[in-house]
Amino acid sequence: MECTRGRFQQSVAPMALRAYLAEFISTFLFVFVAVGSAMSARKATPDFAAWNASSLVATALAQALALFAAVYIAANSSGGHVNPAVTFGLAVAGHISVPTAVCYWASQLLGSTLACLLLRVATAGQTIPTTGIAPEMTGFGGAILEGVITFALVYTVYVAGDPRNRAGPLGVLGPIAVGLVAGSCVLAAGSFTGGSMNPARSFGPAVVSGDFKNHGVYWVGPLIGAALAALLHQNVVFPTAPANIDSARPRIVEPVVV
Amino acid sequence: MECTRGRFQQSVAPMALRAYLAEFISTFLFVFVAVGSAMSARKATPDFAAWNASSLVATALAQALALFAAVYIAANSSGGHVNPAVTFGLAVAGHISVPTAVCYWASQLLGSTLACLLLRVATAGQTIPTTGIAPEMTGFGGAILEGVITFALVYTVYVAGDPRNRAGPLGVLGPIAVGLVAGSCVLAAGSFTGGSMNPARSFGPAVVSGDFKNHGVYWVGPLIGAALAALLHQNVVFPTAPANIDSARPRIVEPVVV
Amino acid sequence: MECTRGRFQQSVAPMALRAYLAEFISTFLFVFVAVGSAMSARKATPDFAAWNASSLVATALAQALALFAAVYIAANSSGGHVNPAVTFGLAVAGHISVPTAVCYWASQLLGSTLACLLLRVATAGQTIPTTGIAPEMTGFGGAILEGVITFALVYTVYVAGDPRNRAGPLGVLGPIAVGLVAGSCVLAAGSFTGGSMNPARSFGPAVVSGDFKNHGVYWVGPLIGAALAALLHQNVVFPTAPANIDSARPRIVEPVVV
Amino acid sequence: MECTRGRFQQSVAPMALRAYLAEFISTFLFVFVAVGSAMSARKATPDFAAWNASSLVATALAQALALFAAVYIAANSSGGHVNPAVTFGLAVAGHISVPTAVCYWASQLLGSTLACLLLRVATAGQTIPTTGIAPEMTGFGGAILEGVITFALVYTVYVAGDPRNRAGPLGVLGPIAVGLVAGSCVLAAGSFTGGSMNPARSFGPAVVSGDFKNHGVYWVGPLIGAALAALLHQNVVFPTAPANIDSARPRIVEPVVV
Repeated sequence: MECTRGRFQQSVAPMALRAYLAEFISTFLFVFVAVGSAMSARKATPDFAAWNASSLVATALAQALALFAAVYIAANSSGGHVNPAVTFGLAVAGHISVPTAVCYWASQLLGSTLACLLLRVATAGQTIPTTGIAPEMTGFGGAILEGVITFALVYTVYVAGDPRNRAGPLGVLGPIAVGLVAGSCVLAAGSFTGGSMNPARSFGPAVVSGDFKNHGVYWVGPLIGAALAALLHQNVVFPTAPANIDSARPRIVEPVVV
Repeated sequence: MECTRGRFQQSVAPMALRAYLAEFISTFLFVFVAVGSAMSARKATPDFAAWNASSLVATALAQALALFAAVYIAANSSGGHVNPAVTFGLAVAGHISVPTAVCYWASQLLGSTLACLLLRVATAGQTIPTTGIAPEMTGFGGAILEGVITFALVYTVYVAGDPRNRAGPLGVLGPIAVGLVAGSCVLAAGSFTGGSMNPARSFGPAVVSGDFKNHGVYWVGPLIGAALAALLHQNVVFPTAPANIDSARPRIVEPVVV
Repeated sequence: MECTRGRFQQSVAPMALRAYLAEFISTFLFVFVAVGSAMSARKATPDFAAWNASSLVATALAQALALFAAVYIAANSSGGHVNPAVTFGLAVAGHISVPTAVCYWASQLLGSTLACLLLRVATAGQTIPTTGIAPEMTGFGGAILEGVITFALVYTVYVAGDPRNRAGPLGVLGPIAVGLVAGSCVLAAGSFTGGSMNPARSFGPAVVSGDFKNHGVYWVGPLIGAALAALLHQNVVFPTAPANIDSARPRIVEPVVV
Repeated sequence: MECTRGRFQQSVAPMALRAYLAEFISTFLFVFVAVGSAMSARKATPDFAAWNASSLVATALAQALALFAAVYIAANSSGGHVNPAVTFGLAVAGHISVPTAVCYWASQLLGSTLACLLLRVATAGQTIPTTGIAPEMTGFGGAILEGVITFALVYTVYVAGDPRNRAGPLGVLGPIAVGLVAGSCVLAAGSFTGGSMNPARSFGPAVVSGDFKNHGVYWVGPLIGAALAALLHQNVVFPTAPANIDSARPRIVEPVVV
């Protein structure tokens, strides 16, 4: 009980509030670029082809660069999750407390929704594109694809945050690796599921456009993929000796210690 | 009075003049690439599609790489603003003096104009493309878009220059983050406003082509976005303790101390 | 005899098993993105052009980013080969033992095959594209192209792993250089041979689609190119003084010391 | 006289020979990718458009990544010039001796020519594309464009090699900055002059295709731009105090000291 209250108090301390604000800003900017680039590419495409390989490159490149920047600008205050699936993976592996994770989720979903609202207002009411599944695919297939690419993303987050990597060259490359692996996954899955790997990136457009078709796919797949990545990294590939259990916590988690 | 004269003298000392020259060179090269890539992409596009998703990728990638390089080559002498909005944000937050900011602006606008002039001469008088607003949009909507993406850029500049980040991996990635976030923003806003987020990048083409239509949008939006980013970073997300107020100045500002 | 048994025991020790798992995961993810991006680009292309310059950019960019990430996440446990040709080059130059190399190959080929199987299942049975040779080319010409680009890749791996480079800036850039040189080679050879430079990347699609036409090209060319790169780097361009023979071993090899 | 003989002997010492070999390998690989990517993109383009914005992106991206890798792999033995204009700029500013520069040029031109020969053989005799000037442009305009972009490249080389930048973050980013600024310049000038900024990159295709039309443009423009960049950086923007004249030599030059 005491412990729960302590955790709650931690979750509303000034540094924690700043972390939520940082998640809000980063997710806002990331989703603004992700959705904006899809709209910009669609607008630039002649009528006879609503989606082509150039659009795929445009939005994948935009997301790679924007996710890198979003992680970069939040790294030192919130850890730069920018993604409920990343927060979920860290919570499952015990690297972030549940109250903090809940506040992170709220900040991320709010940031995403406001970004989409602003895009609709600024572009004079254009349609906000949602992530969707190709007609010939099943929701199950879509969830597998989203799960695999989210696995890649969260596994990279864990390697980047591993204290054994932080001091060396791998630590320097962390935010870059996180952004670029996401970009490569958009290129791989883009024509099949949109390559979201991020429930917040799918949630904002769904709310603003009112289209929640197959929306569950973008929660189920990423959350399972993220949990698997966190558990596999921590328990099998890079297991931590008991004595080092504290120092083995990834850096880019739980920054809300007051 | 004495203070003002001291500031003026500082602004014309040899190191200050070198900083202005560095801003001139970097802005010249950045605008040369930004406008040149738009011209090259247009020339490569068949008649029936004056602008497509490939052109968007071409010019966004060019600006990402060129802005990184422009910041990189000027970082140690002028701080690598390459953008009047960046300079304005730093002035608003008190990290650069007004006389220095004015000289930076002059250097940036001159560099941009000369780059566009040279492009017109070298290409035998081809039209210099200006940044413009999509027909269905309002100037207000355009200013919002430009403001949001300039916010992203200047916020990243502040994180990159924060002395608390400089020694670690985030410091190393600074110029890269600044270039890539700009590239992602061009992809997001490119088909709506051109994705300028830089009054100098819009000013040169407007002067050389004589087309100032909606030009105010590329000053109002970016200047407001830049000021918000500077104030939010300094006062809310990463507030500085009073004792550290001096060391908290971003590195890539006010390099003109003699 | 004793030595052989010792080497075999080394090859099944816990750290060795983790290295094989890391190779499996990295090759799985890399091939998932490489093949997935080709499928995504093809799906996005109108019927009249099955392959165009945008598809080339999409898959090359995907492979550059994904190979960087795959090397990054495995660097500290398996060395991040992700490619039987890299493993072969290191074995030829004496930097990895033959039993270990055999286990690496098995992990890589298994990862690639499973990635292609999963892609077929998730996309409801779409065709898995294999790497193939342009109609007007000979298998010999294809092997030359694949050999040259694999030479570039493995030579870069050796420079990145050279202990004389590790402490400085070149060490930091290692995984980036490996990923990006591969991306540039896909752009160079993509329309002629698919730009594989990796027998595992070609093996999985061949198994899952049952199409082994010209498959030998993707083993002969890369293996010869890799061996040449390893020998040239070690013996001619950066020869090692006898006293330093041990410390000159590249870091990203033979991580399976128990 | 003695001095000249000493310089000559230095130029044929073992470390010097390795530097020439490194320049040969790097230029070979860079030109292989630069020309190969132009061929791959052209082959992927439907008949009605021999060159489009996607091809521009493909070859610019290939050159950005390949130049980074080429500089990276040669940095510690030859300094990674990979370009006669870079060598010329360093010679003009007194950072490399004339005999060494001549040997560098020979290695670079030989590497480029062999790369183009191999591409023609491997692709069963396809045409090797040369860099050329757009029909409406003059040779003078082309030389200006090539001069400006070579200025950007060589100025970046100087900043990257400046000993005042080497220890900090700017030093780590050096080879990346050199590669990416070149890529951005290809995007800017690609449709007008091909964006060569490198006499070796233009020489090999000219020799192998036998087409030397306007070839002088690719020597005159880049050599003048390179010399201006070297002199401006050394004498105006970052002047060196007399006492530090030795330590101010860029690192990535004159590595051939025995």
